[in-house]
Amino acid sequence: MDVADLSTQVVRVLDLLGVAANVLLAGILAREQRFDLVGFIVLGVASGLGGGLLRDTLLQVGTPVALTDVAYLVTAIGVALFAYLVRTSGRWWLRGVRLIDAVALGTWGAVGAQRALDAGLHWLPAILLGTLTAVGGGMIRDLLVRRTPIVFGGNTLYATCATAAAAVVVLLDRLTPQGWAGATTLVAAAVGAALCLLAYRQGWRLPEA
Amino acid sequence: MDVADLSTQVVRVLDLLGVAANVLLAGILAREQRFDLVGFIVLGVASGLGGGLLRDTLLQVGTPVALTDVAYLVTAIGVALFAYLVRTSGRWWLRGVRLIDAVALGTWGAVGAQRALDAGLHWLPAILLGTLTAVGGGMIRDLLVRRTPIVFGGNTLYATCATAAAAVVVLLDRLTPQGWAGATTLVAAAVGAALCLLAYRQGWRLPEA
Amino acid sequence: MDVADLSTQVVRVLDLLGVAANVLLAGILAREQRFDLVGFIVLGVASGLGGGLLRDTLLQVGTPVALTDVAYLVTAIGVALFAYLVRTSGRWWLRGVRLIDAVALGTWGAVGAQRALDAGLHWLPAILLGTLTAVGGGMIRDLLVRRTPIVFGGNTLYATCATAAAAVVVLLDRLTPQGWAGATTLVAAAVGAALCLLAYRQGWRLPEA
Repeated sequence: MDVADLSTQVVRVLDLLGVAANVLLAGILAREQRFDLVGFIVLGVASGLGGGLLRDTLLQVGTPVALTDVAYLVTAIGVALFAYLVRTSGRWWLRGVRLIDAVALGTWGAVGAQRALDAGLHWLPAILLGTLTAVGGGMIRDLLVRRTPIVFGGNTLYATCATAAAAVVVLLDRLTPQGWAGATTLVAAAVGAALCLLAYRQGWRLPEA
Repeated sequence: MDVADLSTQVVRVLDLLGVAANVLLAGILAREQRFDLVGFIVLGVASGLGGGLLRDTLLQVGTPVALTDVAYLVTAIGVALFAYLVRTSGRWWLRGVRLIDAVALGTWGAVGAQRALDAGLHWLPAILLGTLTAVGGGMIRDLLVRRTPIVFGGNTLYATCATAAAAVVVLLDRLTPQGWAGATTLVAAAVGAALCLLAYRQGWRLPEA
Repeated sequence: MDVADLSTQVVRVLDLLGVAANVLLAGILAREQRFDLVGFIVLGVASGLGGGLLRDTLLQVGTPVALTDVAYLVTAIGVALFAYLVRTSGRWWLRGVRLIDAVALGTWGAVGAQRALDAGLHWLPAILLGTLTAVGGGMIRDLLVRRTPIVFGGNTLYATCATAAAAVVVLLDRLTPQGWAGATTLVAAAVGAALCLLAYRQGWRLPEA
């Protein structure tokens, strides 16, 4: 396995970890709202796979990855089942989920932008689709449980981290030779995740209107 | 007309009956919220055709059936107009609509899974898409009138019946020869509908978290 | 540049003006809800481009125009930035935005129906898609800020104007020779916009159920 294959595999694992983290976060909401098992699965699948489904549906380059690569659904449904059965709590647990969620925001922003560039899109829609990949699942989740989507404000940098990761992908895509897409995605994901964690620790927010 | 054609026709009729039942259920909500005629039509179309539109949009195998087979829109708009003009009520009326809705849940779960298999999907996403076909319209309806979607819990078995119908399709698809898809769909729809009616009568629910 | 090209260009300009007007209207809501800059952009993009994205995603004839013609995103993001930075108010300002919004309703209804006919759809789904193009962005906006979508009633003729524009396109499409699509769209958009402004001035509403 060469470097390109290896980085592609690492990106896929990060992508699936992001699914797991988002399904766990959805599980916390589902428990608060006293959903049944189907509710856990529906909310979990919408949270964990919604962003990628939105991205692939908008790109219109074939059936979404989340439906053709069965690992995505297995992860989402498996973790939703776990969240339903096991009442998890505690500061360290939440901290771990948040850490993975930050990595997911960066990864999804980067992966989304890369896929859009691969489909021949201009860099500006590519950054939009990267951001939408990262925040779309959470927006659908918040709509379904009737919360104002957290993407609109009132919390530390969130969509911004995904936008940053997507922007790094767009930049590096111009500066690096073909075949480096996997490595580029990893670097961009790391930048996005680091920004997200830093913003969380420092309490960085965008100013309200 | 041979058996395969006949069962395909029966499935289409059940599918359209499901549209009608869901538009009627949406009309009850639209009347409660004092919508105007456009509101009846928008909510009715979203309820009756939303699940199939979601399924076909996610599958990405061409323009959704609900837009290419004009019978779907004619049914949805016609029934919405009827629901706007005629103030229906009474126990027997609601009971009839519920019966058709149960048949619709089973039919849509089965049809959705069949279409996903036809598009070459793995059985797990096929079951997901079957379920989404059946509950998607109701989820969109509940979002539009700002109710917590009933799919999340607090009622008798609902998505579960569609999932059961979808699972029967997946199972029978492996056990029966090609060309039996129509008959398979009918059997699966009957299983889903029966489970739904039984659950309603017996008050079966999934346990809350 | 001949007449066909000219009318196509005029339609594109009206389309982009509609995006701008809808992003401004979204900005008013975003300010009320104290969103941050990302919130302004997300709500603005969803309002201004949502209808066209829905239309193109449902039609499934390739990546949506709003993602391939970068002028759409530039307009949406630029106007969202303006709405975030500049606190606009005043009767004349709102009146101007409303005027453009009426033109947008007509234009979007007409453009959406034309695109659906071009994709080979029946006239009934074409009218539906025209209407959805015009009201879809506003529906998504209202969902995201948790208001009951205004399309359901309680205001002067709104979706109806887009439906009228779409119906004019469908009619003229049968009566005029090929190549007149641009001019047809302009006439239809004018009819829709005029109806919308007249309804607003006269307080015309559809009766509630």
